[in-house]
Amino acid sequence: MPTLNAFYAQSGGVTSVINASACGVIETARRHPDRIGTVYAGRNGILGALAEDLIDTGRESAEAIAALRTTPSGAFGSCRYKLKSLEKNRREYERLIEVFKAHDIGYFFYNGGGDSADTCFKMSQLSQSMGYPLQAIHVPKTIDNDLPITDCCPGFGSVAKYVAVSTLEASMDVRSMAATSTKVFVIEVMGRHAGWIAAAGGLVADQGIPVVILFPEIPFDPPAFLARVDALVKYHGYCTVVVSEGCHHPDGTFIAEQGTKDAFGHAQLGGAAPVVAQMVKEALGHKFHWAVADYLQRAARHIASATDVKQAYELGQRAVELALEGRNAVMPTIERIADEPYQYRIGTAPLDAVANTEKFMPRDFISEDGWSITDKCRRYLLPLIQGEDYPAYSNGLPVYVTLENHPVPKKLPAFETA
Amino acid sequence: MPTLNAFYAQSGGVTSVINASACGVIETARRHPDRIGTVYAGRNGILGALAEDLIDTGRESAEAIAALRTTPSGAFGSCRYKLKSLEKNRREYERLIEVFKAHDIGYFFYNGGGDSADTCFKMSQLSQSMGYPLQAIHVPKTIDNDLPITDCCPGFGSVAKYVAVSTLEASMDVRSMAATSTKVFVIEVMGRHAGWIAAAGGLVADQGIPVVILFPEIPFDPPAFLARVDALVKYHGYCTVVVSEGCHHPDGTFIAEQGTKDAFGHAQLGGAAPVVAQMVKEALGHKFHWAVADYLQRAARHIASATDVKQAYELGQRAVELALEGRNAVMPTIERIADEPYQYRIGTAPLDAVANTEKFMPRDFISEDGWSITDKCRRYLLPLIQGEDYPAYSNGLPVYVTLENHPVPKKLPAFETA
Repeated sequence: MPTLNAFYAQSGGVTSVINASACGVIETARRHPDRIGTVYAGRNGILGALAEDLIDTGRESAEAIAALRTTPSGAFGSCRYKLKSLEKNRREYERLIEVFKAHDIGYFFYNGGGDSADTCFKMSQLSQSMGYPLQAIHVPKTIDNDLPITDCCPGFGSVAKYVAVSTLEASMDVRSMAATSTKVFVIEVMGRHAGWIAAAGGLVADQGIPVVILFPEIPFDPPAFLARVDALVKYHGYCTVVVSEGCHHPDGTFIAEQGTKDAFGHAQLGGAAPVVAQMVKEALGHKFHWAVADYLQRAARHIASATDVKQAYELGQRAVELALEGRNAVMPTIERIADEPYQYRIGTAPLDAVANTEKFMPRDFISEDGWSITDKCRRYLLPLIQGEDYPAYSNGLPVYVTLENHPVPKKLPAFETA
Repeated sequence: MPTLNAFYAQSGGVTSVINASACGVIETARRHPDRIGTVYAGRNGILGALAEDLIDTGRESAEAIAALRTTPSGAFGSCRYKLKSLEKNRREYERLIEVFKAHDIGYFFYNGGGDSADTCFKMSQLSQSMGYPLQAIHVPKTIDNDLPITDCCPGFGSVAKYVAVSTLEASMDVRSMAATSTKVFVIEVMGRHAGWIAAAGGLVADQGIPVVILFPEIPFDPPAFLARVDALVKYHGYCTVVVSEGCHHPDGTFIAEQGTKDAFGHAQLGGAAPVVAQMVKEALGHKFHWAVADYLQRAARHIASATDVKQAYELGQRAVELALEGRNAVMPTIERIADEPYQYRIGTAPLDAVANTEKFMPRDFISEDGWSITDKCRRYLLPLIQGEDYPAYSNGLPVYVTLENHPVPKKLPAFETA
């Protein structure tokens, strides 16, 4: 078989372990120089392919590539750019094929969520209809944990661990302060459509921490919520609220969109947490504190889950193996065998079944009253946050690699994206 | 000499290492059973002493006390309760003496910031004038790093490490996303009057991250700030803003005031980040994300500075040694000998020189333009974030101890606080 080059790109919101997948892809490809020439990475994701702005990962040292395993963020840059349908924007897909052709690229590894799985699938179809052989393999990545078929998505376990650890620590702080000061702590976490991340906050209930979770799956009911907080504060002296950014009213309006004003009449800007905290203050009079973790949660490589890092690497590795096995339009997946002790194997899913399908929390992962997680959810989540995988430190800070990212000389005329 | 009991209490906002000081106090006291009987802790700080609600730490196992070293929050509860002046509320001070007398307490260890140093000092004075021998030793604690004389305060180094690590990670995330999405990331950190914590965010500049710091020491100048952000985004493609909760306008108005006040009459802050982010969006049009770390930063024992943990323990230990040496109305301090390699020794400061004095950032720790830290500041900060001191983990979460906190039988009539 001829030696062909590979293209790898990172898509959408980055995570603390997406570079571990990149590491798995590149290290595995380097072990097969007879089949795979160079891995070219797209600078800023698929935009790099459209602009023929490719990065020559072959010029990075083995040490630098190995360091990707412990480095958060997207080492080659990511982008939020969804290709339109083939019918509406065929020229972009054709441009990708042209760029791949010009650089002898026969393997397309796309590391992202549902949208990129869709792009990956379309590329595999187009390459067939255009008679250009291309093996398109999707590498799953999303902190939202909302891809179908796979038991979990790399990126999620580490966010879950961050949220569980942070919720535990802040709750213990509040418990210390509650006699005279803060009684309610509100932490806002990501997850616009699915409550997977918020659910992780519920793991601290095992340690006796009173937690109320506001899931996107359960329409917000302020009187019931306030009654619940009131009861917990009366019993425990304090409580913690984990609110998903996607928590919304029955009419679909996000909590964060609610225009509240502060004591000076200024509109309060963004954030579900301050809205919820203010509501507790006004109705119950409790002193509160609130935090919005935002990017801190998805970038927190310093407290990544060892299970998550391992799976992220393995899925990158498996993607290359699948390509070498001649597979096309597939995504490697995590198949859970057992909860405890946790066992899993790597499976595969056809991309047409993955693309553009969102996986929501099963209703039986959320308690009947809607405020907490069930044992079933707990059994699902616990293995995913197991293990610590600390980066090296120097001078008090983690040693994260920044690659050299040498450009590959261009061969084609410039191209304007739509 | 007779065997006397000791009283220990935690005061004000808790930290990720205040329990390491408690561990130092209790373990050291236990090594001197000939001089110190039992360490009684105040439940919820000094309120526990006023209410004669004492905790018998003698009933905790050696393992439980040792585990305090790796446990965040205040193990005995803390409080925000400032005793009024002796003139205005002499009966509370007298009540404390009565409680101490009733329980044979000859040593008073108060673990807190400036306000508690003041209380500690008054207790030592009163015990002299009332003819009741009491040795009052203050154990420094404050994430704000604003106590005078001591080179640094336990609690600060760990918050500084958390802020530096989080700023680095989130900045790398934004750098990955900047081509098509977020270009400005704003992180809000604590520090009401002094910019020590915000300064820690400036440590990531060593790694090439463009950072703008908004210090409480530098009155906020929106046009100059926006010009700075604009220049950094034009040059680097993105930038990070670290805003102190204490950042304020020239007239003293905080960027964000929620209008609520704490027990000391200080305005409760929070929400400077969204204000700053919105300002950037409106003036420059950049896509932004913002985070408010709030309690997460001061509770983050999972990423505590090993230097900070060690010093917190040593200052607790030294406090007991000072008491055994017959000292009164003093506070053990950190005296820096050298920046690199970092060397320090434990000194002492008289409490009348510590009480109610705030230490601000020296102006030469802030760059001339006001947006970043100087090399001098960097040399000061770096040793304080050195080393990692990870807690043990079980089931994916840190193993933090919750003490049994057995009450000591009361001997006195009840007492109403003012």
